[in-house]
Amino acid sequence: MSTLPPSLRWDPAGPALVLLDQTKLPGQEVFLTLTDPAEVIEAIKALRVRGAPAIGLAAAWGLVLAVHRTPGADRQSLDNGFASWYALLLESRPTAVNLRWALERQASVWKALSPSASRAVSLQTLTAEAARLHAEDEAVCLQLGENGLTLLKAGSGVLTHCNAGAIATARWGTALAPLHLGQERGFDFKVWVDETRPLLQGARLTAWELGRSGVDATLICDNMAASVMAAGKVNAVVVGCDRVAANGDVANKIGTLGLAVLAQHFGIPFYVFAPTSTLDLTTANGGAIPIEERKATEVTSLFGSAPTAPADTKVFNPAFDVTPAALVTAIVTEKGILRAPYETALRQVLLG
Amino acid sequence: MSTLPPSLRWDPAGPALVLLDQTKLPGQEVFLTLTDPAEVIEAIKALRVRGAPAIGLAAAWGLVLAVHRTPGADRQSLDNGFASWYALLLESRPTAVNLRWALERQASVWKALSPSASRAVSLQTLTAEAARLHAEDEAVCLQLGENGLTLLKAGSGVLTHCNAGAIATARWGTALAPLHLGQERGFDFKVWVDETRPLLQGARLTAWELGRSGVDATLICDNMAASVMAAGKVNAVVVGCDRVAANGDVANKIGTLGLAVLAQHFGIPFYVFAPTSTLDLTTANGGAIPIEERKATEVTSLFGSAPTAPADTKVFNPAFDVTPAALVTAIVTEKGILRAPYETALRQVLLG
Repeated sequence: MSTLPPSLRWDPAGPALVLLDQTKLPGQEVFLTLTDPAEVIEAIKALRVRGAPAIGLAAAWGLVLAVHRTPGADRQSLDNGFASWYALLLESRPTAVNLRWALERQASVWKALSPSASRAVSLQTLTAEAARLHAEDEAVCLQLGENGLTLLKAGSGVLTHCNAGAIATARWGTALAPLHLGQERGFDFKVWVDETRPLLQGARLTAWELGRSGVDATLICDNMAASVMAAGKVNAVVVGCDRVAANGDVANKIGTLGLAVLAQHFGIPFYVFAPTSTLDLTTANGGAIPIEERKATEVTSLFGSAPTAPADTKVFNPAFDVTPAALVTAIVTEKGILRAPYETALRQVLLG
Repeated sequence: MSTLPPSLRWDPAGPALVLLDQTKLPGQEVFLTLTDPAEVIEAIKALRVRGAPAIGLAAAWGLVLAVHRTPGADRQSLDNGFASWYALLLESRPTAVNLRWALERQASVWKALSPSASRAVSLQTLTAEAARLHAEDEAVCLQLGENGLTLLKAGSGVLTHCNAGAIATARWGTALAPLHLGQERGFDFKVWVDETRPLLQGARLTAWELGRSGVDATLICDNMAASVMAAGKVNAVVVGCDRVAANGDVANKIGTLGLAVLAQHFGIPFYVFAPTSTLDLTTANGGAIPIEERKATEVTSLFGSAPTAPADTKVFNPAFDVTPAALVTAIVTEKGILRAPYETALRQVLLG
């Protein structure tokens, strides 16, 4: 039985945003009750909430808290409060596309308010839009799960990387959505979880999340995936993505490319789960996607360990890699399952 | 300039075995001065010395110390001392083939002593044999380096996994031998070092060893190898091995198989360095090689870190994997470079 708690939920009684502090996992399950937009910004900056959809939702609820906290009932005060917190929330994670998008949704309903709208009506409008965003994300993820389940046989071995999970979204997750949903429907998957160096999202988050959902999950080091595949224990690989280029190339957590090559070698389908919001027709191909390099200490000291390499060791620490479309069996979106040629399929699903 | 110290050396003045304590790397370079065979056994058991050849040499020198420590000069006392320490040294790492082999070499010269051999002559004989074993291992590794260098162009990018290094042997190492030797000859390799989860031999040992040798080495997480290869930065992969089966299948540190698949995909040669002592014609193929599974905590807690996964997480932790011969470009031995069909090449090199 699933005992997986939501990563974030709105408590109207507070009012407050109740947020799972993901930095405390897997050791502790700590829920923060945030009643002030400054606390939401701190939570985003400190990665207490992570995953593009979850960050966007936290920011949308943050704006609701902002207006709650804004003194005065006149339009000018309310507009000023909204605008200043909007700016602060927007810069809490500058590169997060969903963050901007969620804030813009709130700005859009805010601007549509009548100049005579009361404080209560303004709050009601923002609250309703945040709830709508929340419900929309949950619906998208559920549909990713439904679509994904059509690709996976009951009893399958499924390997996943990083955390494309429920706690990164409103609920269900992206690549993990079919696993949670399958668990509710007795699919009895056997899931292999890459620990996902250097930040161990697989070990810290996915192993925890699948465990709470009751899924049969086994943790491995990233370099063990080939052995598990060679032993015939993997029937499908499911991963999320950060961006899909117009030709179907996929940017995702470092290690994804290697898995895709292994999957092809061992004849295992490789499925990328991508809400249509991550499809980016303005990026021609993977070569045009900038890859962030992160600091050496992520590699040379781990989760509070002693240094694991000599102090002067040179380190290369790319956060993402690009998997060429040719290695992707299908891209699962909430609007359907896309197959090669992706150039055409992606345009069709986005432009109709 | 190389400032790489020997992993172990004999100090006749002690007499003592001076041993690099590899458990203290990379934080500290501690050299132990062992004057008693019990200390050698402790060092082997506690993995202060690791790598099959280095363990064998430590044991061979341990027998020299044993006879130094044996009271009495009569043949019976000396034989008893030798036999009892022989047994204790042999069981210090029960599965190590080189350990048994090195001890048997000492037993062989011991048995050939005349019944009237003095204590001094007995010691001289054992000391000479240990020195011979040491010199032989160094010569084998040097030849692995020479042979390996014929496969690598100056300026190449070379990727390696685990520590098939100088500190696992008398000197030079196996897969790392051409890199150390190349450094002395201005080959200017650019080496990529897999950290090698779960025990981080790459980060802790290889990064340290290559650094001390002056080699340009960059540490990566295992799951970054695909990215580095895709970027065209790897011209060859070099790995050691624990055992080569009669058909050319190779057992080596977990993660080797995945690298071999990636190398094939990216058109990069994959070289296995194997002293002929690791060639095992009695094992038909990789399927017949037992793969040790190790404890979960190696994966879920790292180098003194806090637990990185929930306490009840299932873990699969194989210590080795098997790379099929078809993925191996060449097997480099001290007697020459072997190419497919390996069945024939391996028989020829061993049986002439």
